[in-house]
Amino acid sequence: MTSSIKKIQRKSRYRTVGLMPGTLNIDKSALTPKMEVFSYNKDGLTTTDAKDIDVVLQQVKKQRSLTHWIQISGIGDAKLLETLGASLDINPLVLEDIVNTHQRPKFDEYDDYVFMVSRVIYFNDEGELANEQFSALIKGNILITFQETYVECFPAVKTRLSAGKGLIRTAGPAYMAYALTDTILDLYFVVLAQIGESLDELEDKLYDSPDKSVMYNAQQLKRSLINVRRAVWPERDKINDILRTDNRLISKDVKMYLRDAYDHCVQIMDLIENDKEITSSIIDLYLSMVSNRMNEIMKVLTIISAIFIPLTFIAGIYGMNFAKIDPVTNKVMPDNMPELYSEHGYYYAVAAMLFIAVIQIIIFWRKGWFSKL
Amino acid sequence: MTSSIKKIQRKSRYRTVGLMPGTLNIDKSALTPKMEVFSYNKDGLTTTDAKDIDVVLQQVKKQRSLTHWIQISGIGDAKLLETLGASLDINPLVLEDIVNTHQRPKFDEYDDYVFMVSRVIYFNDEGELANEQFSALIKGNILITFQETYVECFPAVKTRLSAGKGLIRTAGPAYMAYALTDTILDLYFVVLAQIGESLDELEDKLYDSPDKSVMYNAQQLKRSLINVRRAVWPERDKINDILRTDNRLISKDVKMYLRDAYDHCVQIMDLIENDKEITSSIIDLYLSMVSNRMNEIMKVLTIISAIFIPLTFIAGIYGMNFAKIDPVTNKVMPDNMPELYSEHGYYYAVAAMLFIAVIQIIIFWRKGWFSKL
Amino acid sequence: MTSSIKKIQRKSRYRTVGLMPGTLNIDKSALTPKMEVFSYNKDGLTTTDAKDIDVVLQQVKKQRSLTHWIQISGIGDAKLLETLGASLDINPLVLEDIVNTHQRPKFDEYDDYVFMVSRVIYFNDEGELANEQFSALIKGNILITFQETYVECFPAVKTRLSAGKGLIRTAGPAYMAYALTDTILDLYFVVLAQIGESLDELEDKLYDSPDKSVMYNAQQLKRSLINVRRAVWPERDKINDILRTDNRLISKDVKMYLRDAYDHCVQIMDLIENDKEITSSIIDLYLSMVSNRMNEIMKVLTIISAIFIPLTFIAGIYGMNFAKIDPVTNKVMPDNMPELYSEHGYYYAVAAMLFIAVIQIIIFWRKGWFSKL
Amino acid sequence: MTSSIKKIQRKSRYRTVGLMPGTLNIDKSALTPKMEVFSYNKDGLTTTDAKDIDVVLQQVKKQRSLTHWIQISGIGDAKLLETLGASLDINPLVLEDIVNTHQRPKFDEYDDYVFMVSRVIYFNDEGELANEQFSALIKGNILITFQETYVECFPAVKTRLSAGKGLIRTAGPAYMAYALTDTILDLYFVVLAQIGESLDELEDKLYDSPDKSVMYNAQQLKRSLINVRRAVWPERDKINDILRTDNRLISKDVKMYLRDAYDHCVQIMDLIENDKEITSSIIDLYLSMVSNRMNEIMKVLTIISAIFIPLTFIAGIYGMNFAKIDPVTNKVMPDNMPELYSEHGYYYAVAAMLFIAVIQIIIFWRKGWFSKL
Amino acid sequence: MTSSIKKIQRKSRYRTVGLMPGTLNIDKSALTPKMEVFSYNKDGLTTTDAKDIDVVLQQVKKQRSLTHWIQISGIGDAKLLETLGASLDINPLVLEDIVNTHQRPKFDEYDDYVFMVSRVIYFNDEGELANEQFSALIKGNILITFQETYVECFPAVKTRLSAGKGLIRTAGPAYMAYALTDTILDLYFVVLAQIGESLDELEDKLYDSPDKSVMYNAQQLKRSLINVRRAVWPERDKINDILRTDNRLISKDVKMYLRDAYDHCVQIMDLIENDKEITSSIIDLYLSMVSNRMNEIMKVLTIISAIFIPLTFIAGIYGMNFAKIDPVTNKVMPDNMPELYSEHGYYYAVAAMLFIAVIQIIIFWRKGWFSKL
Repeated sequence: MTSSIKKIQRKSRYRTVGLMPGTLNIDKSALTPKMEVFSYNKDGLTTTDAKDIDVVLQQVKKQRSLTHWIQISGIGDAKLLETLGASLDINPLVLEDIVNTHQRPKFDEYDDYVFMVSRVIYFNDEGELANEQFSALIKGNILITFQETYVECFPAVKTRLSAGKGLIRTAGPAYMAYALTDTILDLYFVVLAQIGESLDELEDKLYDSPDKSVMYNAQQLKRSLINVRRAVWPERDKINDILRTDNRLISKDVKMYLRDAYDHCVQIMDLIENDKEITSSIIDLYLSMVSNRMNEIMKVLTIISAIFIPLTFIAGIYGMNFAKIDPVTNKVMPDNMPELYSEHGYYYAVAAMLFIAVIQIIIFWRKGWFSKL
Repeated sequence: MTSSIKKIQRKSRYRTVGLMPGTLNIDKSALTPKMEVFSYNKDGLTTTDAKDIDVVLQQVKKQRSLTHWIQISGIGDAKLLETLGASLDINPLVLEDIVNTHQRPKFDEYDDYVFMVSRVIYFNDEGELANEQFSALIKGNILITFQETYVECFPAVKTRLSAGKGLIRTAGPAYMAYALTDTILDLYFVVLAQIGESLDELEDKLYDSPDKSVMYNAQQLKRSLINVRRAVWPERDKINDILRTDNRLISKDVKMYLRDAYDHCVQIMDLIENDKEITSSIIDLYLSMVSNRMNEIMKVLTIISAIFIPLTFIAGIYGMNFAKIDPVTNKVMPDNMPELYSEHGYYYAVAAMLFIAVIQIIIFWRKGWFSKL
Repeated sequence: MTSSIKKIQRKSRYRTVGLMPGTLNIDKSALTPKMEVFSYNKDGLTTTDAKDIDVVLQQVKKQRSLTHWIQISGIGDAKLLETLGASLDINPLVLEDIVNTHQRPKFDEYDDYVFMVSRVIYFNDEGELANEQFSALIKGNILITFQETYVECFPAVKTRLSAGKGLIRTAGPAYMAYALTDTILDLYFVVLAQIGESLDELEDKLYDSPDKSVMYNAQQLKRSLINVRRAVWPERDKINDILRTDNRLISKDVKMYLRDAYDHCVQIMDLIENDKEITSSIIDLYLSMVSNRMNEIMKVLTIISAIFIPLTFIAGIYGMNFAKIDPVTNKVMPDNMPELYSEHGYYYAVAAMLFIAVIQIIIFWRKGWFSKL
Repeated sequence: MTSSIKKIQRKSRYRTVGLMPGTLNIDKSALTPKMEVFSYNKDGLTTTDAKDIDVVLQQVKKQRSLTHWIQISGIGDAKLLETLGASLDINPLVLEDIVNTHQRPKFDEYDDYVFMVSRVIYFNDEGELANEQFSALIKGNILITFQETYVECFPAVKTRLSAGKGLIRTAGPAYMAYALTDTILDLYFVVLAQIGESLDELEDKLYDSPDKSVMYNAQQLKRSLINVRRAVWPERDKINDILRTDNRLISKDVKMYLRDAYDHCVQIMDLIENDKEITSSIIDLYLSMVSNRMNEIMKVLTIISAIFIPLTFIAGIYGMNFAKIDPVTNKVMPDNMPELYSEHGYYYAVAAMLFIAVIQIIIFWRKGWFSKL
Repeated sequence: MTSSIKKIQRKSRYRTVGLMPGTLNIDKSALTPKMEVFSYNKDGLTTTDAKDIDVVLQQVKKQRSLTHWIQISGIGDAKLLETLGASLDINPLVLEDIVNTHQRPKFDEYDDYVFMVSRVIYFNDEGELANEQFSALIKGNILITFQETYVECFPAVKTRLSAGKGLIRTAGPAYMAYALTDTILDLYFVVLAQIGESLDELEDKLYDSPDKSVMYNAQQLKRSLINVRRAVWPERDKINDILRTDNRLISKDVKMYLRDAYDHCVQIMDLIENDKEITSSIIDLYLSMVSNRMNEIMKVLTIISAIFIPLTFIAGIYGMNFAKIDPVTNKVMPDNMPELYSEHGYYYAVAAMLFIAVIQIIIFWRKGWFSKL
């Protein structure tokens, strides 16, 4: 499910041994950036599809009364980032963190800007758990966000922005960053809802028609949960760091909303722990069912074997050819298997067999082998 | 047992991706609110069934010398909450928390009011573990509580209130909030008593007539315990937060009683850990019994097989038809199975069989297969 | 072992939903109090069996130069406690904690008195682990202790008191409280010594003649250990709380001795962890033995079956009745089982069987089935 | 894989019981030191292969305007270290730590120098996980590094140094120490990439053709992961210690880069936890497969046995030789096995067998033995 | 291995319920003390075997310019301790801790002396893990050490002392205490080296010829490791306590060396965790091998049974005696087993058997039963 992601992660790290920190070592498979600029205040909103970051930044710097959100999707252009870094005076380490898309969620403060990373997690069209990096940079009245792919995660935020309702138009770039982060957390709830449904299906399957796939699927879900947890734990720490900062870029109002986002993180972690417990419980039940199945199989084998093997032995006894009379010498040997020549020998033998079988069935019934465990 | 609750939880979260914080996104299945108003001081108590929150609040604001407890059951009316929010100047995030009924227990302080959430847990009539949200808002001399359903959890508190005994009439809304919280904790003890009884039954069953259901039931009880624990851990933190606040709405007297409630939380957590250990112990014993049962089955099979298979082989030997005399040519072949034509061959064969059987029984008895493990 | 205690605990909680805090809801089975009063200073000791708490307290209040230890055994008298509470001005929550005998060890400070709870743990005459509450109240020069039953736990302390040796006569009620607490900790060592002996026996049994009871007993011991641990962990916290208080009722000298008691707590916890590891090790070894036993059983079955089943098949072949000559038509069919009519057919068949058996024995011997694992 | 390393570790410790601290107890197998000196500032770089530490240090002390990195590979010369210690006035404990190559990563501050230890981890040519000690000493403008072997770990750093790009020429010895440490961390990523590939292969094997080696290899990988974790945990603490020091040898700029290295540590720990989870999951799946395989085997055995054993018994019955007529007396016994002399007895017997077989197959099919679990 | 130690521990505790703190309750089996006195300064060393503690202390008090180390081996003399306590004014609780040899490592500070406890751990001549108490008392220029047995642990320290090299002669009693503690830690490394060798042997055995003893030995080693860990954890805390004290008896120089000892503690804990992981890994592999062995056994049984049981059934069929002609009435019944009278019936039957066997072998081969898992 997530192995392809994992491999990319390792390979891209493999090539950077001993490189200079701050080097923009962009992955070959990274997408060409697309840019969309949202400039707004409480009176209006302008949306622009931009090509040249330089032009955008110059324009943006002029409009000091507006808040600007520059949404960059795709990070496959070192030039763009270098231009941006030079124009806004951003530390190369930050730029490196933007292109090296394996950062854990974090919040870094610099002299006059802040930088934050989140993980965007969703099931993609192939049913794999995608784990993208989303980074945001706040400087003055500008918010620049970077996303690995073109997947649109924020339609609802954009709708709110164009509707002009609420604080979104008036509360500045930090509130916008909060709105995006909270939307990303909402996506976590969606992923957990999907995992929850899979767990429900798995549980139904466990009770209805358990087979090997239960174990595989439970392990897969467990790994997905662990992946989500690995993203959400540092996310919570990140939000906590923002809550405790006294950076003037993060206003008290935004912090009040972030406390809400913090609660959501804790709820997500709670749901993950719950789902992990359910997964463990499914695995335990499955393993117990395998044991019980084995028990049942062995009981059937043992009951049938135990009953028939002695009977077959008796039949074998009376199938022996010890001769009463020697065919060559005609010597009579009355001691050899006299039962065979007794008038009701056959009936006695069958009666003995029935008796043994009944005794055994009673013993097994008493042991409870016909009903329980 | 709890899967229906779980699903609702996930689905209701699923629809809110990117919504504006503070949006009152009320679940379709939420119940129409019922309101009951208790106005009291040490001299008297008035109880009113109210319809219109606006009327209630205006009346309540006038009677400054009384403490008012407005109990709202059912949260399916956005209008009511908006009116209340506007009239008392409550933050929309608080209102959202009231209707979004998946909050963990918490205590939030605002300028001139405090807000707290608890989880009400009980086994409902279908034997499922219900997990409702109970929220309380204290502003001035008013306490407003919100509950998801109409289930009456506080008859004893109301009795104490009408009896006029103790601090309940004189110690203000925070004491009432404490009394309700402590009653909710008492319900946890009831749930744990019920789980404890189920554990006792399960343990009896384990010793008397263990079957597959032991494993299922133990897992179910484990999950119930985890659910209670998930409610009580943050409850303890919440009470701790209240104990450490210096908010003037929470008097020193109330805190003394809350320390008692805190002790109850710790006791509940203690009982849960104990019951979890018992559950684990039951599961371990059950799995060990399954193993032992398998051992016993295999021993029966092995003893019977090991004894009779060689005997049957001997019988098979003497059931072979190697001919002493050729029926066509009448050629005599004295080397073919001379035992069959020996005078006491049969007796010797039976004696050999008995000997082998006795030897094997002695070996198995020495190995202790007839008695132990 | 401890299930009866557990049930009582749950039931008694069950009845108190929503009761007023501080209500003295005494369990029906609680014993009638017995009172013994020890009044002493360095010069002498008076011991009195008292009936009326009121009389006792009045007398005691007069003798300011003496230290008084009022030992109350049995808590089944609400009146006594109310009198005591009124006379010494004790908070009703403290009185409730005394009769509600499921408190965890704790240390509570009030204006001019302190209250502490310990758990007394011992194996009673039925071999069950009794878990009683012991509470102590220090006010001025008076120490009042409450115990659930009449079991005498402190003969050695009383001997020291009457001997008049050491600090016990001179160091006031807090030192006496320390002496009693340390004695209770000594009882924990006794319980652990008994559990340790049971573990040794269990280990001997495991090596000598393991059977199902090993698993049951190991689980029982594990639960006993968990019960002791649940008592000793908060006991340590309690002592730590006392060590850190600056309450003038707890002198610096007493604290020095309490540090010793603290070390004992840590030693007890250490022993418990050790014993838990031993228990786990016993359980693991037992389960591994069950597996090995199964392996051994299966090997016996497989060796015997694998050797004899093919041989029996060969015997079966030559037990077939394909006719060389048709009894009705006398038609000769020389192709039907010519081996039966070969002069040494029998010997060849037996030789073939022996060969197969030897080959198989060699294979199994090479696989190491006759010796290891 | 790592056992040889482990043994060396233990043996070298074994000989030092009670030795004076600071004794240079060099392992016999330690390599003769090679020295390379890099003297540089922003204008130029001189690289020298040196033999005599004394000469090097005297020369180095003269060139105060340059930064000097003395790279010493191989630590098998006590004299060299003593000279160095005397010349630079280094505490003997530091020298002991350099030669006793089992130090955990740490950062020690002394009056005018600092000392730090890292672990260099890589898979060597034999595929074993090598775990070397790398120590660095910063005093004034001099950085001295010690490595156990001649393995070249820093080609990229030396390239950057000779290229003269970036801070490496200008930021002094602490920045160089940071650059080396970060390169060592990059090697951890390489090791994790290799372990990750092995895990992928193992997982493929698990699904394609699982055999015993899965368990062995999973355990080996788990141990490798634990070894890496044991190195990286204290490494993180070390970096944290450096970040919190106010030693003037560590400038604020270097700390900014170290924060980046700290993030790398956390990422490595994250990858390790992830890989450990994957390893556990592989082991669990493998064990579950073994159980399922057993189940499948037992089902085959049971189905075949259960079907054929009763049939064989019936065949055995009619293979008995109860005589209808006594060959000696010619007495007729019509009760003995009349079925054998019934005209269609054979057909009836075969029909009965077929019936029993079909019934059993239906029963097993209904139990789902032909398809699931 | 360690059970005898455990029992002594419990029994000796058992007798002290309620005893006065500070009572010297010496174990019957305690050895008679031997005393050796080392008086030294940088100029010289006098070693004396002493009998009377009183004489020793008087002499020692006179020689203020010398450092005195009084090594007492064996603690079975209450009188000696009481004399010592009286002469040096030592708290009875300290004396009790010296004779009650179950103390955890700790560091206690008193007015003008300090007291510390360590555990000496080594494998004794019987191969059992001995766990002795070593306590040290520093007052002024005197160090008194107490050891349970006469086992000489400090020959290297005494050699250094008589050699007069290093700080040992000049740095006072605290440095000597450090030197002894560090030597004790070196003994831990020796124990871990021995455990490590046992683990290596166990691992070799696991791969070469696994049997039941693997499980027993792994459990034994695990317990030994836990015992060492139980000693070293509080040892680390103790050293940490000494490092943080500002007691003038512990000089800054000694603390620098203690930091080294602290590092050793952490290294020991690291080795223990590593060895515990290896032990767990051995146990897991062993259990997996037992499972695989079972699988292999069952496969052999199933293949042989599955192949031969149907064949034996066919042979059984044709061993039936359904008669073609009634021996009494001579009635011909051509429908009874006509195959027996077919000219090539025997060949057809054998061919059918071969066909069934080959089909089954192909099926099992396809299932991979002949090679993997």
